[in-house]
Amino acid sequence: MARVVALDVHDIRFPTSRELDGSDAMNPDPDYSAAYVVLRTDEGPDGYGLAFTIGRGNDVQAAAIRSLAHHLVGRAVPETAADLGALYFELVGDSQLRWLGPEKGVAHMALGAVVNAAWDLAARRAGVPLWRFLSALTPEEVVGLVDFRYLSDALTPAEALEILRAAEPGRAGRAAFVQDAGYPAYTTSPGWLGYSDDKLAALSRQAVADGFDMIKLKVGGDLDDDVRRMKLAREVVGPRVRIAVDANQRWDVGTAVRWMRELAPFDPYWIEEPTSPDDVLAHRAIAAALGPIKVATGEHVPNRVIFKQLLQARAVDVVQLDACRVGGVNENVAILLLAHKFGVPVCPHAGGVGLCELVRHLSLFDYVAVSGSLEDRVVEWVDHLHEHFTDPAVVRRGRYLAPTEPGFSARLKDDTLAAYRYPDGPVWTAAS
Amino acid sequence: MARVVALDVHDIRFPTSRELDGSDAMNPDPDYSAAYVVLRTDEGPDGYGLAFTIGRGNDVQAAAIRSLAHHLVGRAVPETAADLGALYFELVGDSQLRWLGPEKGVAHMALGAVVNAAWDLAARRAGVPLWRFLSALTPEEVVGLVDFRYLSDALTPAEALEILRAAEPGRAGRAAFVQDAGYPAYTTSPGWLGYSDDKLAALSRQAVADGFDMIKLKVGGDLDDDVRRMKLAREVVGPRVRIAVDANQRWDVGTAVRWMRELAPFDPYWIEEPTSPDDVLAHRAIAAALGPIKVATGEHVPNRVIFKQLLQARAVDVVQLDACRVGGVNENVAILLLAHKFGVPVCPHAGGVGLCELVRHLSLFDYVAVSGSLEDRVVEWVDHLHEHFTDPAVVRRGRYLAPTEPGFSARLKDDTLAAYRYPDGPVWTAAS
Repeated sequence: MARVVALDVHDIRFPTSRELDGSDAMNPDPDYSAAYVVLRTDEGPDGYGLAFTIGRGNDVQAAAIRSLAHHLVGRAVPETAADLGALYFELVGDSQLRWLGPEKGVAHMALGAVVNAAWDLAARRAGVPLWRFLSALTPEEVVGLVDFRYLSDALTPAEALEILRAAEPGRAGRAAFVQDAGYPAYTTSPGWLGYSDDKLAALSRQAVADGFDMIKLKVGGDLDDDVRRMKLAREVVGPRVRIAVDANQRWDVGTAVRWMRELAPFDPYWIEEPTSPDDVLAHRAIAAALGPIKVATGEHVPNRVIFKQLLQARAVDVVQLDACRVGGVNENVAILLLAHKFGVPVCPHAGGVGLCELVRHLSLFDYVAVSGSLEDRVVEWVDHLHEHFTDPAVVRRGRYLAPTEPGFSARLKDDTLAAYRYPDGPVWTAAS
Repeated sequence: MARVVALDVHDIRFPTSRELDGSDAMNPDPDYSAAYVVLRTDEGPDGYGLAFTIGRGNDVQAAAIRSLAHHLVGRAVPETAADLGALYFELVGDSQLRWLGPEKGVAHMALGAVVNAAWDLAARRAGVPLWRFLSALTPEEVVGLVDFRYLSDALTPAEALEILRAAEPGRAGRAAFVQDAGYPAYTTSPGWLGYSDDKLAALSRQAVADGFDMIKLKVGGDLDDDVRRMKLAREVVGPRVRIAVDANQRWDVGTAVRWMRELAPFDPYWIEEPTSPDDVLAHRAIAAALGPIKVATGEHVPNRVIFKQLLQARAVDVVQLDACRVGGVNENVAILLLAHKFGVPVCPHAGGVGLCELVRHLSLFDYVAVSGSLEDRVVEWVDHLHEHFTDPAVVRRGRYLAPTEPGFSARLKDDTLAAYRYPDGPVWTAAS
């Protein structure tokens, strides 16, 4: 029987700070990085996963992934692949490691990377892309993936089952539809804070020409700059294209409300991360003050418990789950179910390293097996670093193509592993 | 001028799981551990700090502390000691490392350990215990320690200044009082879940004989056991001694309410950690259902943002800050100010490794310079592992003695460092 024989971890970093790609008000000089994990098996495919970081600390993230090795190495692959709830519960239940969170930060992202690698392995063995693998599970099997601890005041297993059963009859039709039509995307590429006005205008114009009907700008550095950039973008894209703005947690409640009122004349669609991702009550206050501008957050929301409260408090209009921030596929299934229960669309965070590659699978699963809707659903698209993946995300005419390769798409190319290894890969030794 | 020449990190673990000390419903077999940091200087005293963990993952915590070395090594000691707000803001502002939290989990505990080590260094240089060092700062200097980002909807710098100024005239008198009288303590030693009924009864009896007027029991494993143990403890200690219970996050809202109603006939004083430390709304619901039983939490609350919301929502009656969970002295000063603003007593979490040693300084500062009150204030006391510290916490007749040695009391003995080093210290090599 196939077994996991090793858990390999690689510290991979891309020197993105040299070009200011990814620059925003909170993160002026990120070096997009991945703590990359390979579940090596003695027969059949390996499994690939990653945690995304922005440079320093990627070694800490790698150490946290290594700390989970004893749960994986020696494990029988078929049994693991047949019950990915069991693996997730075992990892979450490691009481000594739990102290490091619980269920948040470095330790939780490590758990997510390993869980996702196990899902990748399972889908590869099955010969199907992850979104189809997930969509083929019965409603009961999906419910069995979720840890309902801390959720039952908002969502019970019975309610989750009801949601999944209601969507079951339409699964095949919706899967066929998205295989043809793809899934709606929006692009953040024009709006990084380090870009000049000319670059912003040119990239915004290009985005519309490429078929996007929504773009996003970074804000929160300087109010006059933001007003000028927002006005410029609105002029370039016209009234029908949605423009979201993203403050990357820069503000308190009062500042968020005042700042956004200055941008309101240019019709921002949502304000993303106006304040701390932990601050449910602040998001509620901001949402109450700024409607009809929507409030969005999620890329730094550490777990399902905070998402649950954001939904219970009607503090967000858009849930931006992230493939690598929480406890992997299992916890993201919980978040999809919660969002559906509260009638809030899920528009995942992407970009970074591999986030577009991974998260498209989750949105396709959401459409096929949970929400059954594309209304106001969009997945973020950032057009960089895809060339490093063996099964890169592809966007055409503003839509993600549905992936067809087996697995969860987190695998990096061997050349990339060699070149970008930190600190001793040639990209880094040549720079220093 | 004295400089920091190295940041040394030690992985120190105590095999506490062998005796079930520290066992509770969520943590059945902890090996109490410290990721221990020494800020080595080229002249004058060094600075000592630690992050507390319960075993596996202490190496990850150590790696996270090491990731902060570039902020410390080479730094001028007098300037650092003269403005510990500046160091804290620099560390919190490391945008690449911030991604790993933000301000939570492994990365944030690492920051806290380093910040606390710098406070220790500053107090040692000044030749005074940390609580006196802190209490000698002007109200303006104290306000300058706090990061008000994400706090201004609940507490402004002006309000904080007002709180501190109001307490200023009584500082000297209160410092003299606690130097004589000590600070109230309660004991958790009788109530670990792994203990037999006989041991629980004997230790409860002993606690009262030792002068404690409050004890704490762990609950949440089995309801029948809890009812029996609570009844037994109440019989042993009589009606006047407070008995707190601690569920260590085991429950959802409904379970917490049902379970505690079964214990209510035995007059529990507070229910601690009834559910997820991130769940503000659940704590609010539990508090509303269970009053007059108080709701307490804090040892796993990751930062000031969650504490702020727990207070805003009237979700807790007791704030249990922890010396090592958040961003060091600076963030704990923010939490003390928030609690005072909302009129909620602070009763710190302690136990673990060194938490009693450190946190007594914070409660003494709270009394001298912030709250000015001892009403319903108690610091947890767990009587183990103190022998490993050079300036151990001492409790007499149910009260912590005010420390008199210079510093923040986190220094471990050299013999302990050698013996308990993981994995190659003799305590560990002999066991395997």
